[in-house]
Amino acid sequence: MTSTSRRLVLAARPTGMVDASVVEVQEVPIPEPEPGQAVVRVRYLSIDPTIRGWMDDRPGYLPPIELGAVVRGGGIGEVVASASDRYPVGASVFGMLGWQDHAVVDEGEAGAQVLPEGIEPTAALSVFGVTGMTAYFGLLDVGRPQEGDTVVVSGAAGATGSIVGQIARIKGAGLVVGIAGGPEKCAWLVDELGFDAAIDYKAEDVRGRLAELCPDGIDVFFDNVGGEILEAALDNLALRARIALCGAISIYNDRDAAPGLPNTFELINTRSRMEGFLVLDYLDRFLEAQLEMFGWVAEGKVTHREHVVEGLENAVDALNLLFTGQNTGKVIVAVSSA
Amino acid sequence: MTSTSRRLVLAARPTGMVDASVVEVQEVPIPEPEPGQAVVRVRYLSIDPTIRGWMDDRPGYLPPIELGAVVRGGGIGEVVASASDRYPVGASVFGMLGWQDHAVVDEGEAGAQVLPEGIEPTAALSVFGVTGMTAYFGLLDVGRPQEGDTVVVSGAAGATGSIVGQIARIKGAGLVVGIAGGPEKCAWLVDELGFDAAIDYKAEDVRGRLAELCPDGIDVFFDNVGGEILEAALDNLALRARIALCGAISIYNDRDAAPGLPNTFELINTRSRMEGFLVLDYLDRFLEAQLEMFGWVAEGKVTHREHVVEGLENAVDALNLLFTGQNTGKVIVAVSSA
Repeated sequence: MTSTSRRLVLAARPTGMVDASVVEVQEVPIPEPEPGQAVVRVRYLSIDPTIRGWMDDRPGYLPPIELGAVVRGGGIGEVVASASDRYPVGASVFGMLGWQDHAVVDEGEAGAQVLPEGIEPTAALSVFGVTGMTAYFGLLDVGRPQEGDTVVVSGAAGATGSIVGQIARIKGAGLVVGIAGGPEKCAWLVDELGFDAAIDYKAEDVRGRLAELCPDGIDVFFDNVGGEILEAALDNLALRARIALCGAISIYNDRDAAPGLPNTFELINTRSRMEGFLVLDYLDRFLEAQLEMFGWVAEGKVTHREHVVEGLENAVDALNLLFTGQNTGKVIVAVSSA
Repeated sequence: MTSTSRRLVLAARPTGMVDASVVEVQEVPIPEPEPGQAVVRVRYLSIDPTIRGWMDDRPGYLPPIELGAVVRGGGIGEVVASASDRYPVGASVFGMLGWQDHAVVDEGEAGAQVLPEGIEPTAALSVFGVTGMTAYFGLLDVGRPQEGDTVVVSGAAGATGSIVGQIARIKGAGLVVGIAGGPEKCAWLVDELGFDAAIDYKAEDVRGRLAELCPDGIDVFFDNVGGEILEAALDNLALRARIALCGAISIYNDRDAAPGLPNTFELINTRSRMEGFLVLDYLDRFLEAQLEMFGWVAEGKVTHREHVVEGLENAVDALNLLFTGQNTGKVIVAVSSA
């Protein structure tokens, strides 16, 4: 254990894919807690597409990460020094810890929570964390599948998409179709997660395959991808379809060059609803959803997979996995084995 | 009164704006009613943007008008011959009568209704008809304005848009803004219909003006126009905004060349909902809405204007008024003075 702590600060705003020049590794003294604070040794970081969005200097649902500031991101760690009754030494804590070895959490802020006993930290960041909650509330609260509905998910082999399809199955969807990149991911969806079918967008015509696989149209489309995949789905809607807009990973690396969506008129033809959501709006309902998810995982109805990248210094590469599609399941950085 | 009847049939699919070559005027014998039928002398035709859409050979919420078929459209007329108890001679009837002097209505079909006494036929086609119902249900059922909301309407000087703004006012909107073309229309909205402000999209930067006029963002956007106006609205949404997609008049004449909507990601940033609707889905609730609308018109709370074009032979020109923006209020064709 050294006496210094690494942190990755945003050194430059990226254009396109992120590379090493975007962050600067700084060595700083391990912080001391002020009254009401605790210092957390960060163990795992949640790597999410939205982090790429926060690196741009454009308004969003949260302010951009400032240049020179630690890269924002969720994580889990262990309290190593405390001046707070809420965060005792040894407790596991999750929250917006940031891309660094040590984070200061403050009991005056809502940001960090003590993790209950018995939950694997990596699962806490994926299926039981923001990722799983995104799947749960986006599908059930925004998509609102009815018994027998055709549910289609893009980014289906990703952390959120893979959970969406399984919840749809549990909730009585008639047909669950995933859109993913490559035969391995597609096989995983069908063979292990119980999707009825998968479309390999890298090899197949998504619009045409959706028409074949969903002859009655799509009732619920859960979109993680945007762009041409969303366009193809809009051309295959059932009447009164619901499109839950979760993310648009196809455009995050070059927002200005994103092609427009030419067929929103289909929303009129089919009387459909397209609605964006943010899981942070559901914080007060996380507990109910987590309890249900614990049950499903325990019963084997929901399978989750984590893709762990070792080393804080590899966080940028881990983020890029999401955009090159090289991950299956939730990308997590194991900050250090120290 | 002659013994023949004119009808306008679709002779060719239009490209771009409709011109005379798209329809053929045919003279046919006045039809005789079969049992259960009546023959209606058509007096007024409702001219709606959606008719242009039906002329294209593309799937929509109704099938395309077939080549050689009478142009589809709503209208009002008088029963001149009847073999049906439902439609007595002399009764006023409204429904999908088509672009012709005489229409056959059949009591076995839901299409035509007897007009109650005391309603002006032109008002029956506008504020009390499909147009007014579109405004009513689109705003209240899809847009769902809350007390104090900022409500913005595009195509605001049109038949539907002008009613939308007035209903928003009645229902307690905090701010009502219309987008229309030209200073006369804008003045009409503010001076006569009680809109708080109007944006002249032909002379002003819509995105910038929306930002100025709606500093807290748009809560409800009722869209008749699509394209760049919808794009500008998406960049000015409040949190949890609702976009009621009614039509997209900016694209009907050239659907394939319509620019895509580049900023649907704003729906995620603001957790907003964009939803298409069709007034035909609300037929079973028309009566409740018409009763409320009768009251508002009687109390002077809703002003409506009709733009009457004389002569069935001018129906094509009347349709184009909608796309050149030369109408204020509802475009109606007075089929003949005979």
